[in-house]
Amino acid sequence: MSVYFAIIYGAILISLLVIVCLVKYVFKQDKGNKDMQEISEAIREGAMAFLKRQYKTIAIMALIVLVIIIFADYFANASKGSSYAVSVAWHTGFAFIIGALCSAAAGYIGMYMTVNCNIRTAEGAKKGVNSALKIAFRGGAITGLSVTGLSLLGITTLFLIFGGSSGSDMLIKQAPSLIIGFGFGASFVALFAQLGGGIYTKAADVGADLVGKVEAGIPEDDPRNPAVIADLVGDNVGDCAGRGADLFESTAAENIGAMILGVALYPAFGLKGILFPLVCCALGILGSIVGIYTVNVKNESEDPMIALGKGYIITTIIVLILLFFNVRYMFGDVVIKGMSVNCGLLYGCVVTGVALGFAFVLITNYYTSVSSRPVKEIARSCETGPATNIITGVSMGMESTAIPVICISLAIFISYKLGAAALNNIPNAGLYGTAIATMGMLSTCAYILAMDTFGPITDNAGGIIEMSSADEEVRVVTDRLDACGNTTKALTKGYAVGSASLAAFLLFSAYLDQVKTIIGKPLDYWYSVDVGKPEVFIGGFIGVMLVFLFSSTAIRAVGRAAQYVIMEVRRQFKEMPGIMKGTQKPDYARCVDIVTKGALKEMILPGVLVITVPILVGVLLGKEAAAGFLMISTISGVVMALFLNNSGGAWDNAKKLIELGAYGGKNSEEHKAGVVGDTVGDPFKDTAGPSLHVLIKLISTITLVFVALFR
Amino acid sequence: MSVYFAIIYGAILISLLVIVCLVKYVFKQDKGNKDMQEISEAIREGAMAFLKRQYKTIAIMALIVLVIIIFADYFANASKGSSYAVSVAWHTGFAFIIGALCSAAAGYIGMYMTVNCNIRTAEGAKKGVNSALKIAFRGGAITGLSVTGLSLLGITTLFLIFGGSSGSDMLIKQAPSLIIGFGFGASFVALFAQLGGGIYTKAADVGADLVGKVEAGIPEDDPRNPAVIADLVGDNVGDCAGRGADLFESTAAENIGAMILGVALYPAFGLKGILFPLVCCALGILGSIVGIYTVNVKNESEDPMIALGKGYIITTIIVLILLFFNVRYMFGDVVIKGMSVNCGLLYGCVVTGVALGFAFVLITNYYTSVSSRPVKEIARSCETGPATNIITGVSMGMESTAIPVICISLAIFISYKLGAAALNNIPNAGLYGTAIATMGMLSTCAYILAMDTFGPITDNAGGIIEMSSADEEVRVVTDRLDACGNTTKALTKGYAVGSASLAAFLLFSAYLDQVKTIIGKPLDYWYSVDVGKPEVFIGGFIGVMLVFLFSSTAIRAVGRAAQYVIMEVRRQFKEMPGIMKGTQKPDYARCVDIVTKGALKEMILPGVLVITVPILVGVLLGKEAAAGFLMISTISGVVMALFLNNSGGAWDNAKKLIELGAYGGKNSEEHKAGVVGDTVGDPFKDTAGPSLHVLIKLISTITLVFVALFR
Repeated sequence: MSVYFAIIYGAILISLLVIVCLVKYVFKQDKGNKDMQEISEAIREGAMAFLKRQYKTIAIMALIVLVIIIFADYFANASKGSSYAVSVAWHTGFAFIIGALCSAAAGYIGMYMTVNCNIRTAEGAKKGVNSALKIAFRGGAITGLSVTGLSLLGITTLFLIFGGSSGSDMLIKQAPSLIIGFGFGASFVALFAQLGGGIYTKAADVGADLVGKVEAGIPEDDPRNPAVIADLVGDNVGDCAGRGADLFESTAAENIGAMILGVALYPAFGLKGILFPLVCCALGILGSIVGIYTVNVKNESEDPMIALGKGYIITTIIVLILLFFNVRYMFGDVVIKGMSVNCGLLYGCVVTGVALGFAFVLITNYYTSVSSRPVKEIARSCETGPATNIITGVSMGMESTAIPVICISLAIFISYKLGAAALNNIPNAGLYGTAIATMGMLSTCAYILAMDTFGPITDNAGGIIEMSSADEEVRVVTDRLDACGNTTKALTKGYAVGSASLAAFLLFSAYLDQVKTIIGKPLDYWYSVDVGKPEVFIGGFIGVMLVFLFSSTAIRAVGRAAQYVIMEVRRQFKEMPGIMKGTQKPDYARCVDIVTKGALKEMILPGVLVITVPILVGVLLGKEAAAGFLMISTISGVVMALFLNNSGGAWDNAKKLIELGAYGGKNSEEHKAGVVGDTVGDPFKDTAGPSLHVLIKLISTITLVFVALFR
Repeated sequence: MSVYFAIIYGAILISLLVIVCLVKYVFKQDKGNKDMQEISEAIREGAMAFLKRQYKTIAIMALIVLVIIIFADYFANASKGSSYAVSVAWHTGFAFIIGALCSAAAGYIGMYMTVNCNIRTAEGAKKGVNSALKIAFRGGAITGLSVTGLSLLGITTLFLIFGGSSGSDMLIKQAPSLIIGFGFGASFVALFAQLGGGIYTKAADVGADLVGKVEAGIPEDDPRNPAVIADLVGDNVGDCAGRGADLFESTAAENIGAMILGVALYPAFGLKGILFPLVCCALGILGSIVGIYTVNVKNESEDPMIALGKGYIITTIIVLILLFFNVRYMFGDVVIKGMSVNCGLLYGCVVTGVALGFAFVLITNYYTSVSSRPVKEIARSCETGPATNIITGVSMGMESTAIPVICISLAIFISYKLGAAALNNIPNAGLYGTAIATMGMLSTCAYILAMDTFGPITDNAGGIIEMSSADEEVRVVTDRLDACGNTTKALTKGYAVGSASLAAFLLFSAYLDQVKTIIGKPLDYWYSVDVGKPEVFIGGFIGVMLVFLFSSTAIRAVGRAAQYVIMEVRRQFKEMPGIMKGTQKPDYARCVDIVTKGALKEMILPGVLVITVPILVGVLLGKEAAAGFLMISTISGVVMALFLNNSGGAWDNAKKLIELGAYGGKNSEEHKAGVVGDTVGDPFKDTAGPSLHVLIKLISTITLVFVALFR
């Protein structure tokens, strides 16, 4: 087995070396003139101050949860003997802390790199697109590799600590369920990172726009706007730290879910089945590294999006090849029920997962890109005013859930059937097939994250250029990169929902598996939940309700936090008349401070809601009700996230389409109507939607951690 | 048993006599002057023309479905012998036709009365509030009594025809599942009635407002607006015919669901268990009649809403008393497992149901009434423009789903436990408890429908007064009644969702029961669905997706149909310049014609979607997937309907609040922002939301009818 651990740690080591090279590359770039450095410094300070305070808040809540975990695990297992109960409690608690710390570290690294890359990208833009593209993307890649590397490192090491190499069947089989604590810790931090960041970014954005653009009539990113730095900080804390934590959590949760199913197949596979997802992850990191280094544009007029897309395709091809050999190598000699495992079919699961990832990116592109039918239709509806714009956007967003759901359904169905056939229809074989599909989908995660983090870096670089009044031709470069960054942000969001939806099924199955183990039923094919029981129906009702209520609180939080910004900006404009004349510098720091406090305050309610409701359902209504709750909340969470992300993205680009000259063009009545849609879409696509990705996985890990407590 | 049939037919006879009296009362009222009659005649013609064409479209589709039902039922049962299969096929098909015809008749009667009441109410308003109130409400009562009476008559008679009084155990037990065809027919017609009517009313409303109010700057209901008659027709076809069909369907579906569960308890109760829901319905009609006659205002300054509320409370009290004795009378002497049935606990189920109905009305009132916190907050958010208005409304609408879901959960849980305890924990006892709660809730249905239909009548009366340039003091009277009608419309919508949600659980259980019967498993406590199967998960995914996709198509349909109206009104304004000067009469009929065609065309896609998807899921993925689909689509349908209804209602009243002078008042920027919210909310609350009520029940009846075909 040591060869697998060698591959895993080897990949982690390689990625560490690459990270060092990338950091060196980024830091040797020029930091630009004093004006630019001043702005960048303000962004850096604001972002780091937010992160520091946010982590403090999260740490306090995490400690409370930790105590609850330890006590809950102890009492739930007390009947099996005190020393066993203590052991379970400490192991889970320890894993929880490690998961939370790793997630926080991933967020910190990502943020640190972004705020150091933005100014260098801005300066690089003076040399041309290729130079800026490389700096921004390699900066993003540092985040991508750190996040995936840390996740893999954390889980593998915990597995070893918990007895993964002990040779003891009992310890090995028990380890994955103890590592759930890691997933819970990761998703706990991710929830607040995404919520707090999402609220911050949109509160600053909406606040800056409403007073700046609408009331004072100054352009976006104008240095006279006191909230402009807060807005730029927001891009980092929302898109970068938030999405990083989200995908850290995805890889962690899905690795753990797959490992738990690997345990169910232990009699057939031995340790291999548990280690397979981790090896896939390691190979995915290696493939992503190659892809990352291929990204550059040949000539300056080339579309940077094509370069990024090329890198993604290269990554995908390498990963597909590596996983092909991995499947053959790991399962080629396994014999089940007297027949060898069909590696071709098993590899089909990998392909299904990769295809689903691709499909989600394409569908998101269709529903949100400037040139697509839905966006054009939304832009056209602006001709009859903001109301028809909203109506069309809402209905388009709801429509956009259909094809993704059909794709998810097909992917689950196909990989399930392939897996069952490949493993000669032994129990849990089909499920393991879907787990493999999930691993296939997530294998390109590091590259995807690099593309995602590229977004806020270019966005910030554009802001710095705008504020430091650089030449027009530099602006053209940053504008092109910024447009490209907006696209990658939207597409990676599609990828994140797709992975969350597969995770939903995987973790739901893992939950059923855990229940089965806990209640001590024989490991028969399925554990049945009596859907006819009123408790299950009620659990389901509460599940859908939680998704709506959570979205409501997340959206409302943005509105409330934005109010603080609006009032502060108005105050500064009023009390410091020199700002508008350009003779007085606005107090950026105060705005940053106010939105930080506001976002952190407003993230508590939705966060606490997501953590308490699943536990309450399980404790009050029992395990079966929790199953109904889990299934229906995750399903409706995915659909709601698709609706929120896509409608928000489509409104955003419908406005852009009008700004590009269509349907009335900039500053027309149509444009005003378009701005309304864009503003409505902001909290949809950047706060509630992405937070729902985390919610889906958090509900799963939370029920898994607390299942022993349920009636 | 004949005493029960006597009560049922007696109640139907009494309600028929009352209807005759009410019709006489209405028709002897004065029809007003020639101007008014002309307007009323135009509305009458438009409404009837729409109904005629709509029924033609529905008839064609119903015939197609009928053929499918007969073939499907035949082939699904062919294995049990040809003559049996033929019998099932014809019985179900016959029930389907009767259900469809009864539903259509109920819609026709309601519409006919409304268009004849509106002018008399308008004329009555000249005498004062009491006179107008009595005419409008008694007109509404005719609809209420016809709808509930027809539903009861249809089901009871079918039960007798299908062998309910034959004394043959087999025929009696089989009859309820054959009567499902009646429910399917009713919900089939209801879906299109609600969809077509909902699209019509909002397309005309939005179209008239956008060109009339916004573009031409003329007030609402101005006779110069060519779409004004279409708008008034819309109130009838949407609120009156649509809601009538919706609640017709509710009583039908829930009676049938309860009867199927009554069959499951046949060994304990005999025929009584099956007839109990029908007797409850009959007593509910009698109670409603008393309540209807109490409605009047003592002095002219009294709020008509208080009079309506008083009548509702009187109805509820009488019904509670009647049902108390009915429970004692029917179940007092039943002995189960050697112990007599606990009638007190069983009566507790009735009270739970009645309480849930009340709770829904109160919650709806809280979230949508002018004086409530949510509406005030939405109105205040208009200060920062239309975008914040939409954001606040959406998040408030999502929030508003929480308390209703908790209430539903409690009601299901309590009535289930009470029922189980009352019937000494025999199988299905708990379910029968929830069925009794449903009957309790629906017992006041006739009165609720009277209140609901009161809405469009007063709305129309106000329009007629407005257009015929009557005195200011008459307008005050109709305005007061109109405001009251808006409230009753909103509250009855809450009641309709509440009943749909209980129906969802009841029909879901009936489905599980049918599956159990078909696959021939012993009548054990529960039939388990393996929620871990990927098919079930996929079924659930498709279920949530269908709710989103259906809402999308319904909302979009309004936008599209409104476009036709907008273009026509613009054309008339342009080509007939005399209209705006008041020298030329607009071509109302053409507008009515155009919106009729548009609405009928646009209702096809969402309608066909709802009918085909459940059958596809069942046929392709099997019975268990259909169960997952059914459960999750109904649950998410209820939550989505709550969101759409409440956000729409709140936006509507937030705008009204501003018009009353708050936050800027009429014609301010805030008011403009409020109008945007109101326009967005229109298709939410009057098209998609109410259509979802029907969808919830239609999906249940459709799976029940086609279950034999499922894998």
